[in-house]
Order: sequence, then structure tokens, then C-alpha cells
Amino acid sequence: MDKELSSIHYDQYLQLQKILDAQKLRSEEFKEPAHDEMLFIIVHQVYELWFKEILHDLGSVMDLFSEGAVEEADIGIAISRLDRVVKIQKILVDQIDIIETMTPLDFLDFRNYLLPASGFQSFQFRQLEVSLGLKRDNRISYTQCAYSGVFSQKEQDILDALESGDSMLELVEKWLERTPFLQFDNFDFIEEYKGAVENMLISEEEAIHSADYITDHEKNLRIRMLGETSSYFNSIFDKKSHEDNLEKGKLKLSYKATISALLINLYRDEPLLRQPFMFLQKLIDIDELLTTWRNRHAQMVLRTLGQKIGTGGSSGYDYLKTTAEKHRIFYDLHNISTLLIPRSALPKLPAELKKKLNFTFSLREE
Amino acid sequence: MDKELSSIHYDQYLQLQKILDAQKLRSEEFKEPAHDEMLFIIVHQVYELWFKEILHDLGSVMDLFSEGAVEEADIGIAISRLDRVVKIQKILVDQIDIIETMTPLDFLDFRNYLLPASGFQSFQFRQLEVSLGLKRDNRISYTQCAYSGVFSQKEQDILDALESGDSMLELVEKWLERTPFLQFDNFDFIEEYKGAVENMLISEEEAIHSADYITDHEKNLRIRMLGETSSYFNSIFDKKSHEDNLEKGKLKLSYKATISALLINLYRDEPLLRQPFMFLQKLIDIDELLTTWRNRHAQMVLRTLGQKIGTGGSSGYDYLKTTAEKHRIFYDLHNISTLLIPRSALPKLPAELKKKLNFTFSLREE
Amino acid sequence: MDKELSSIHYDQYLQLQKILDAQKLRSEEFKEPAHDEMLFIIVHQVYELWFKEILHDLGSVMDLFSEGAVEEADIGIAISRLDRVVKIQKILVDQIDIIETMTPLDFLDFRNYLLPASGFQSFQFRQLEVSLGLKRDNRISYTQCAYSGVFSQKEQDILDALESGDSMLELVEKWLERTPFLQFDNFDFIEEYKGAVENMLISEEEAIHSADYITDHEKNLRIRMLGETSSYFNSIFDKKSHEDNLEKGKLKLSYKATISALLINLYRDEPLLRQPFMFLQKLIDIDELLTTWRNRHAQMVLRTLGQKIGTGGSSGYDYLKTTAEKHRIFYDLHNISTLLIPRSALPKLPAELKKKLNFTFSLREE
Amino acid sequence: MDKELSSIHYDQYLQLQKILDAQKLRSEEFKEPAHDEMLFIIVHQVYELWFKEILHDLGSVMDLFSEGAVEEADIGIAISRLDRVVKIQKILVDQIDIIETMTPLDFLDFRNYLLPASGFQSFQFRQLEVSLGLKRDNRISYTQCAYSGVFSQKEQDILDALESGDSMLELVEKWLERTPFLQFDNFDFIEEYKGAVENMLISEEEAIHSADYITDHEKNLRIRMLGETSSYFNSIFDKKSHEDNLEKGKLKLSYKATISALLINLYRDEPLLRQPFMFLQKLIDIDELLTTWRNRHAQMVLRTLGQKIGTGGSSGYDYLKTTAEKHRIFYDLHNISTLLIPRSALPKLPAELKKKLNFTFSLREE
Repeated sequence: MDKELSSIHYDQYLQLQKILDAQKLRSEEFKEPAHDEMLFIIVHQVYELWFKEILHDLGSVMDLFSEGAVEEADIGIAISRLDRVVKIQKILVDQIDIIETMTPLDFLDFRNYLLPASGFQSFQFRQLEVSLGLKRDNRISYTQCAYSGVFSQKEQDILDALESGDSMLELVEKWLERTPFLQFDNFDFIEEYKGAVENMLISEEEAIHSADYITDHEKNLRIRMLGETSSYFNSIFDKKSHEDNLEKGKLKLSYKATISALLINLYRDEPLLRQPFMFLQKLIDIDELLTTWRNRHAQMVLRTLGQKIGTGGSSGYDYLKTTAEKHRIFYDLHNISTLLIPRSALPKLPAELKKKLNFTFSLREE
Repeated sequence: MDKELSSIHYDQYLQLQKILDAQKLRSEEFKEPAHDEMLFIIVHQVYELWFKEILHDLGSVMDLFSEGAVEEADIGIAISRLDRVVKIQKILVDQIDIIETMTPLDFLDFRNYLLPASGFQSFQFRQLEVSLGLKRDNRISYTQCAYSGVFSQKEQDILDALESGDSMLELVEKWLERTPFLQFDNFDFIEEYKGAVENMLISEEEAIHSADYITDHEKNLRIRMLGETSSYFNSIFDKKSHEDNLEKGKLKLSYKATISALLINLYRDEPLLRQPFMFLQKLIDIDELLTTWRNRHAQMVLRTLGQKIGTGGSSGYDYLKTTAEKHRIFYDLHNISTLLIPRSALPKLPAELKKKLNFTFSLREE
Repeated sequence: MDKELSSIHYDQYLQLQKILDAQKLRSEEFKEPAHDEMLFIIVHQVYELWFKEILHDLGSVMDLFSEGAVEEADIGIAISRLDRVVKIQKILVDQIDIIETMTPLDFLDFRNYLLPASGFQSFQFRQLEVSLGLKRDNRISYTQCAYSGVFSQKEQDILDALESGDSMLELVEKWLERTPFLQFDNFDFIEEYKGAVENMLISEEEAIHSADYITDHEKNLRIRMLGETSSYFNSIFDKKSHEDNLEKGKLKLSYKATISALLINLYRDEPLLRQPFMFLQKLIDIDELLTTWRNRHAQMVLRTLGQKIGTGGSSGYDYLKTTAEKHRIFYDLHNISTLLIPRSALPKLPAELKKKLNFTFSLREE
Repeated sequence: MDKELSSIHYDQYLQLQKILDAQKLRSEEFKEPAHDEMLFIIVHQVYELWFKEILHDLGSVMDLFSEGAVEEADIGIAISRLDRVVKIQKILVDQIDIIETMTPLDFLDFRNYLLPASGFQSFQFRQLEVSLGLKRDNRISYTQCAYSGVFSQKEQDILDALESGDSMLELVEKWLERTPFLQFDNFDFIEEYKGAVENMLISEEEAIHSADYITDHEKNLRIRMLGETSSYFNSIFDKKSHEDNLEKGKLKLSYKATISALLINLYRDEPLLRQPFMFLQKLIDIDELLTTWRNRHAQMVLRTLGQKIGTGGSSGYDYLKTTAEKHRIFYDLHNISTLLIPRSALPKLPAELKKKLNFTFSLREE
């Protein structure tokens, strides 16, 4: 401790004077006090406070992943911090229940005074999207008319800098690409996997054809499903087709990163891969909760405004609905599921590799 | 009590022998026991139990609304029961968190044994959709190939009978149409409202034009918003256009029912309209939670299966996603929000009507 | 609108400059930055923002109940606002999950810098407790050593003024005492109810004695239960014993208010009593959620600090645990349940009274 | 696959005929149908289904820990399964909201028919408590009168067998006792820690005495806190006093197991200790949620029954309240928090030990 011990009071520590003095009702200013405007202000302030915490945690994880090799201990820390982000996101979704206690009629009591303020002007939310990896080109534009000046020049500069640096998505991609187990001595993961998938598809097809107790309709259904499965697998085995999809914007993660993520998902029971697996899961959780939040937000707007246009000039419900689908960041990680095969069909790892994936010390030998 | 008092034990009362003996793992039958199949079975059984309760509550409300005039006391009961449905729906959404503890790889351990069983075969869920008011013609088909035999003949007959009777949506429509206050002595609600809206629009436009402190860009935005608002209102004031929209399937509630719902929303502070207002809110809650559930369900499927086709042959994620948007029932009630104007601009109710909307007994006079 | 239209930006409206600049980490000041201190500050600021909203809503309800007779429409508004308080309280409980992502070891990184700040210094929380009806004499003291100066003189004055005025509990008591239906023409509610209870007890006892199919053990159990039930009822029928309990601090609501609350609970299906019933339910909800919050808070403290003493010098877990039980406000309302009898045994209301409890206008007659 | 492929329908797979045919309302049998009895039955059946899943997951974890040395990969699996238990428990708590939609008066409509059935007769819940480690001697008796025959002889035998085998608590204790790092070459963990604690206490005391900016009152408070902290530490350093507390029933985990748990908590950032730490956290989560559930359950009973005696003859609220506090299993793990000191004061691990706690393969070296 450099500084000497000193006392501090709760109010002073939390700077409550600032915090609790920051609710100025426009409806009062305009001499038409609307009771519910207080809620409207406070709920948005709470959102912004949580955004600050999310950026604090996410930023610290991005720092850990920025320095080249990521230490094992750091993956543990990253998981804890992303888990916190996930828990905050759950509250962000749940507290929409509070906003919905404000009925449409109550909102109309002060809505007019807010123009053109709008949630789209939240700098922190934009920062969050950009940090995760949403690119300007993939962003759905929320209003037909040109709209400059949402952010100040200073804010815009920060966003530009963020976007030109590595986002969480890109840091994860680089980290995945560094995974050293895709090629291990004579074990070529992708070749082994290809073989395993082929064997599985052949034996499944045989089983279907020889089955006595299922209807023809169902046989056809199963064969069709096998066919679709087969074509998904072909695309993963074909680096070229993957790169085409990257170019078209259908995929975001490089071929190598995708294969690594697949390997981690398949062999996540090996001690060394356990934490990386959990880390990838947390990224999916975050993406999923962001989508859930956008969906709930859209519904809430529909309920409160109907088809009315948003205070910021957005088309409201429809816009929000579309972002829920299109602003997803880690879609490629969700998509790994398409490529999984049952454990029973998995290629066995060589003993030497299995050992590499374990701890120096084994409790077994104790 | 007709019957004599007799004792009963917890197990016997809950028929736990049946309930707890109904989990037979296919993976065990096929000699490849998969730990997580137990969860898969139990979570679906829990869903079906809750569906039974929802149908029990919803059915009782539909009975109350089937008998012509609905007594005030019955609206209170209806609200309580629908509130229960809402609370159950929240749990249905939240327990997706439990399902998601099963990873894609764990699911693959037994998925093959389940074909072609599928949640689309849930008779109770279909019953629920039809009871609320989803029509065959509005249902999104979940598989390209023809698909008969989802339900047994007996089940299909029940669904047909349900669909030919009044759904909740139709019962609510009839109840709204019976609201007696649209025309009261000399008070013609729709005419009065039309006038109020026009006055509001004119004074808002004047305010915008004469405002000194806002940019031209923003003036344009506001004028555009006014214009869109104005055209929504024109559609409600024009019975003909409403009926066109009904025909096109864009709306579902009759003109009269819609106007009544509008009146209830606007004057919901009058004692007699308070409960009807709350009742309409519960219907919106139910619709909203059904949408939330479909969205979360779709995401969970994406996470577990990726682009794989569903066990029942559905296209999985994309199908579920579409139903979230298209299988909405009470969209017209959400949409009432579009037609609301601020309280300060509302037409005053005549004193005689206000009295009618109050209790015989007033605590004021005590 | 007195003032001219003017524009406002999101940041400016929410005063984000203040809000987002109010997180100053003591650990940074002492040159030992602790990542998790940000969470600690933000979560407490969020709590305080929600407390402000709760006080805003609760205060507005208290205002409605302060003016003598409470209009029917106002009870509707009171219910909506208390429902909002309930929804906020749920979030207050749920967000403890976020705090618990901070492990004990992480907390120790900065705990020392916070002394002697403590949640017990939250003025708003104290305000909330006093507003609801917690009296100084019933408050559990949280530290053995004398402890002055928790609040500033100005704050202490506000609390004193609050405590000398009517709390929510007292306002509800007065409102209940004004209920005019306890004595209605020849219908003396308490006498009628007494008779109904006696009849019920006698017939239940007979049923038990004449039952063939239950064991003697169980007969004894049932008789014992009847006996206890009977003594509860005697206490409610005996005004004197009620007043003794008031004096001993075992009860808080006057005899008359308690009887009114009982009547409202029993006949809550009558239209005029529906809203008062719901209002009483909300008060119970608030009390229950406050208890749930205290319990969860206590557990969280146990988990984070173990048996360590709190930063403010409190005995931590044990203190919080005790307040959960003892700081309950509306215990008498919970307790009404003890006095209820099945609907089938209820005294019938006279037709004239039933009519008084209904609306002027009946939809039946439409 | 030993067996040939065969088809299965949703209803058949889930045995819905059994599940949905197991709701027989006693109130209907007695010709006084009570609408809410359906909810009462279904909610309890849902609880029992979830209990089955919890036992399935918990049992599988106990199996993993029964075989002596626990493999690293198994700890990962144990964490996943306990995490599922935790998520189920959250739903068990949340769905009390559904039960509370049944008002006390509604419950009275059928309560009489249920005697003497009671939740205390839930065999699965008892199994759960015993499996976790609740001993007969520590169980709060729920009724004054002797009470035999809650469970059938067969059930009682199963419970006896469970209680005589190793509970989760005992398996964890044995696993902790096997931790090999308490004594490592010249590194004696408990001696090193003792020194670190002493240094910390001395320097804190000096800091307090030399502080200029804090009041005497506060100095005293801080000194008192240090004193209490110091005595906690003395008890952990004194094996004898620990064993006295074990004998008195104040503690449950052996000295060695407690020290191991402390070590895991302190050095949980080391890769090898990360998963053990998370595993211990999950046990605390389970305990905490069980307590939360008991508290909420107690409140719900208070609300529904008031002071009435339970259908099974229990004293209702007070009994449940007491179990929340006394039936805690992993209290000693919560309590580890008392013994933690800030990271900055921790003894450094020898390099050789740190290496042992890491992976064979390091990504750094890639």
C-alpha cells in the first residue's frame, strides 16, 4: 500500500451524489410531470452501467488474448470473466420485465419530449458490438434516411480505432489457428476425421437399407438426412469451398481455426482441451444471449409502440428483429455442431498425443 | 362430501409409480447407455405436464367466455388463470437453460435411436396452438415432403373439432364486440376520437414548424413520423380499409372488436374497464412468451444441431425461427399501441358514462 | 407544453457523463488495481438506482393513500406501481448471481480499502424500510458497539420525519379500517363468520370420528389439527386477545383492520373487492421478496466472507439472517391465511350487499 | 448397435400415456371439483421428475468419486453434471412462483382431501438429502408426535443402505485428503501459510496504529476485526481444536480435507487446481440453492397456510425455516472463506511445485 489507510463512507465510495442526482425528468421541465419517466431514465442508466462492466470484463479478456500465446491460467480467468458477462446479460434480458410495467399509454405521456434521443445513440453498446467483431459492412442500417452525427467525433474515432484493431472474434481466430495438435507426428487430424465420417455414413446407410421395421417413407427421410449430412461434411473437408464461403461472407472463421474448434469440441474431455472448450462455450452463450436480448427488446418495442416509428427515426420493431438474426458474431462456433459425429465413431488419439494433452502430475500415480 | 374420509399417501396421490417408471432409455435398450438421455426424456415429460396444466387453465377461461355475457367476477378469475399460464410459460423458457447443459456431442450419443420421434408430434402443443387461434392455413409447414400420420385419427378428430369451434381469439373478439360503450347516448366514441387525433396532429405539426432549437434534419424526421402516424390512424378510422386487411390476412380482429379494445386501452383507469384491460394484457403476455419460447427453442436447436436436419425431418432452426414470427395469435392487440394518443389529448367521457363505468358503491361517500 | 420543443441527445438525457464517470477504484488509488472492484462498485450503484425507483413508486402509492378515502381508480394505479416494485425486487434478488461471480479471494484483493464503508450506510434502503413501516424499536441492531454517525444529520432528520408520519403499513391499516361492509344492515360479518367456523369445526370433527378407513394415529393427528385451528379462530374472534397481542408486539394491524382484510380475502371474487384483494397481495409479495432478498444476501455474505466480520463492523451473516426473519412488515397479512375457511363453508352475503359490491352497469343486462 | 433400427413415436418414447393419465383429482372423486387441484398435482409431479434427474446426475458423480483416484477428465465430467443439478435447482426455486398463483382460499377447496399426504413423504427428496450427506442425527424432526411409516420397509432399507455407504460429503472428504501437495519436498503448506498469516496480521495492525486519518472509533473497530480474524486462524492452525469441533458437530470435514480445500481455493489459478476449485464451487452452489429453496418453500407455506399445521402434521413454516439453516451439508466449504488471505500476502509456491501443477504441454512453447 503506497497510500496511507484512510476511511471512506458508502455514499462517497459509490459517488451516490452523482448517481442519484442524474435523473432529470423532461416531462417535469415541460410542466407535465409523468410518473413513469423516472423508470424510463433509471432503467436506461442501469443498462449503461452494466454495459460499462461488460466492456471492462470483455476488454480484459481481449488483453489476455492479445499477447500471442495464451497461458493456461489465463484461459481460466477468461472463462470466469466471460461467465460474468453471461450472468449480466441474463439480467439485461430479465429486466425487460420491469420496463414492460410501463404501458404504451404511460409512455406516450412523455415520449414526445425525448425526440430524437434513441438507444441507437448508446456509444457503449456500439463499442460492445464492435469489440465482439461486428463490422460496419455487416451492420444493418437502422434508418433509410442518411444519419450522421449519432456519435461525437471523438467517439467515432474510438470506434474506428476499435474496428481497425483485432476484435474478440479475430483474437479467437488467431488463438485457434495456433492450436498445435492438428498435425501431430503421423496423426493428421483432418484426414483421420474424414475417414471416420465416411465409415459412419456408409454403415448408417447400410443399416437403413437393411432395416425391416421402418416404413419406406421413413427410410427415405433418413436417407435424405444422411445426404444432407454428407454434403455438410464435404464442405468442411474441402478447404477451397470454405474459402469461397468466407469470401461470400457466409463464414467468418478461417479454415484452420474452424478445424481447431472442431478438434476442441470433439476431444474436450482431454484435460488440456477442457478449458478451451468451456471458453468457446462462453462465446456461444454471449452470442446467444445477445440474440435473446435483441428478440425480447424487439417484442417490447412492438408492445409499447406498435408500428410507430422510433424516437430516433428507426423503423422500430422490424429493424430490431432483423439485427437479432444478422448481428450474430460467433455463428461459425454454433455451426461446429453440424460437423460433429458420435463419440463411438471418433478416431482414437495416439497414446503419445493423449499424454501431451494431460497434466505432468497425475493423481492416479499419487 | 359424498364419499367418506379416507387417507392417502403422497406417492399414491401423485401416482409416482407411473410417473417415475416412465423413463426408458433407448440407448440402454440398444446397449449403448448414454447418460444424458435421461435428461432428454425428463425435460420433455416436464414440458408435457406443464402443457396439460396450461390447457386446463386456458380451457376453463374459454368455458367462461363461451356463455355469452361474461360476468365481472369471471373476468377476475380469467385474469388469475391466464396469469398462471404466463408464469408457467416463463418457466418453460427458463428451463431451456437446463437442456443446454447437454452438449451437441452428448446428444449425438443417442440421437440416432430417436428417429423419427419429434417435438412436432406433441399433440398437446398442437392443441394449445389451435385453442389459442392458430388456423391450419396460417401454419408454417415444417417439412417439404408430405407428412401424414403425425397424429392418430382420434387426435386429428379432436384437433378438427377444436378448429371448427371458437378459439380463444374468436371468443375474445365476440366479447369485445359486445362492449356497449362505443355508442353511448350522444357520445360516439370513434367520432370523438377521430377529432381528438386530428387536433393532436395539427398542433404537433405547428409545434415542429415553429421550433427554433431543432435542426432541419430533425424537423424532417419529426414531420415524417407525424405523416406515418397519420396514415395509421386513417386506416383505423376507415372501416373499409380495415376489412380489406382482414381479407388479406393482415388483421384478425373485426373492426368493432378492434375499436372496443382501443377504448379499453384508452380508458382503462375507469373501474369497470380495469379488469378488461388487464385481461387483454395477459393475452399479449401469453403471445409474447410463446414467441420468446420459440425464439429460444430455435437458438437451442441451432446450438445443438447446427444445420443438421431435425429427427422428425424438419429443417430445424429455420423452421422454428419462422414460426416465432408467423404463429403469433394476438398481433392485433399488440398493434393497438399504434393507435394510442397521449392522455392529455383524449376526448373527455361524459359524466353519465363515467358514472356507468364506476361501482354502485363509492368509498368516497362512505 | 409550456416550453418550446427542443432536441435532446441520449447521453445528455441520461446524464451519462455523470453516471459513467462515477466509478473510481480505491484499489487503483492505492496502486494495487483489482479487476473486480469495478463490479463491486457498479453492482452497488445499480442497487441504489433501483432503490430510487422503488421509493418513487412506493412514495406515489403512499400519497394516494394519504388523502382519506381512496378512489377505486387509485387502487388500480397502486396495484400497477406495486407490481413494478415487485418486478424490480425480483431483479434485485436475481442479480446476486452476478455478485457471486466475484470469488472470496478476488474480494480480498480490495476489501481492505473499503473500510468502514458498508451497505448499512445506504440511506435509501433505510428510507425504504422506514417507509414500509419498520420501527426503530423493532430493528435488529447490527453491531454490539454503539454506532453513531451512520447517517448525516440531514439524513437522520428525514428518517425521523418519515418515522413520525404514516408508513405504508399505517396507511393500509387506516384504509382497511374504513371498509364499510363489516356491519351492513342486519349482516354482522364477524358474528356470521363465527357461526360458520363453528359449524365447520363441528362437522369436521364428526367426520373424523365416524371415518372407518383411517388409522387411529391419523384420527389423533386430525383432531389435534382441528384443535389448533380452533384456538387460532378463538383469538381472532376475541378482540381483547387481539389487543393483548398488539401490545406484546406480536401483531401490528388493529382488530378492525384485520377483520376487514379477512373479509376482503374471503369475498375477493365480488367485483368491488377484487382490486383491494390484489392490492393486499402485492404488499405480501413485497414483504416476501424483501425476505428472499435478505436470505440470499446473507448467503452471499457467508460465501464471500465466511465468519469474517463485515466492513462496517456488523456480525455479517448472522445479522442479515436475523433481519430476514424479524424485519418483516406485513406479517399480519400473511397470517390472514390462518383464518380462512373453505368457500363451501362461507356465510352467504345478503343480496343487497352483493349488489353494492358490484358495478352500476352490468354487461349481463346489455 | 446390437438391435436393429426401429422407429419410435414421440408419445411412445416419452410414455405420455402414463404421464398424462396420472392426474386424478381427489376433489372430483369427492364430487367437489376444485380447479386448482390439477396444478397442485402437476407441480408436485414435475418436482419428482426433476428429483429423479438430480439423483441420476448426482449418483453418476458419486460413482466417479467412489473408485479411489479420480481422473482429471472425470472432474470435468463431474463439474458438468453438478452444473446441471444447479440449473435444475434454479428452476425448482423459480417455479414456486407458479404455485403461488394458487391462493390460500383456492387451496382450502381441496386441502381436506389430501390428508395425511405430505411432501415429507417424498422418498426421492429424502434420498437426495441422504446422498448429499445429511445424517439421521442431524435431521430436524418435523413433528413432535412419533411418526413411523413415512416410508415403506423397502424404501427404508434403501435409505439405510445409502446412509451406511459414503455420501457425497464423505467422498469429497476422501478425495480432498488424497491431495498430494500439502507436503511437497521442503514445502510444508500449513507452516508456510501460518507464517504468511502472521506477517499479514502484524503489518495490518501497524498500519492501523500509524494511520492519521481515521477516527479512534474506527481504529478500535479495525483492531477488533483483526482480533477476530486472528482467532479464526488460530483454530485452523490448531489440529486439536479442529478435532474438538468435529466431535461437537460444529465441523464435518477432517482437518486434512479442510487444509486441502484451503490450498485449492488459494492456488486455484494453477492449471491443475482449476477444475478441483470449480468442482468445490459447484458443491457450494448446490448447498446454497437447497437453502434458497427451503427458504422460499417456507415462505410459500406461510403464505398459503399461515400458522395452520401441515397436512402431514408438521408444524409447517417454522419447521421448514429451521431446516433451511440446519440441513446445510457443505458448510465447511462455505467457511473456507474465513481462512483466506489476500493474494498479495500468499506464500509463493516453489518453482518445482508450480511445474507439477501445470500441463506437460505448454502452448507457450509451441
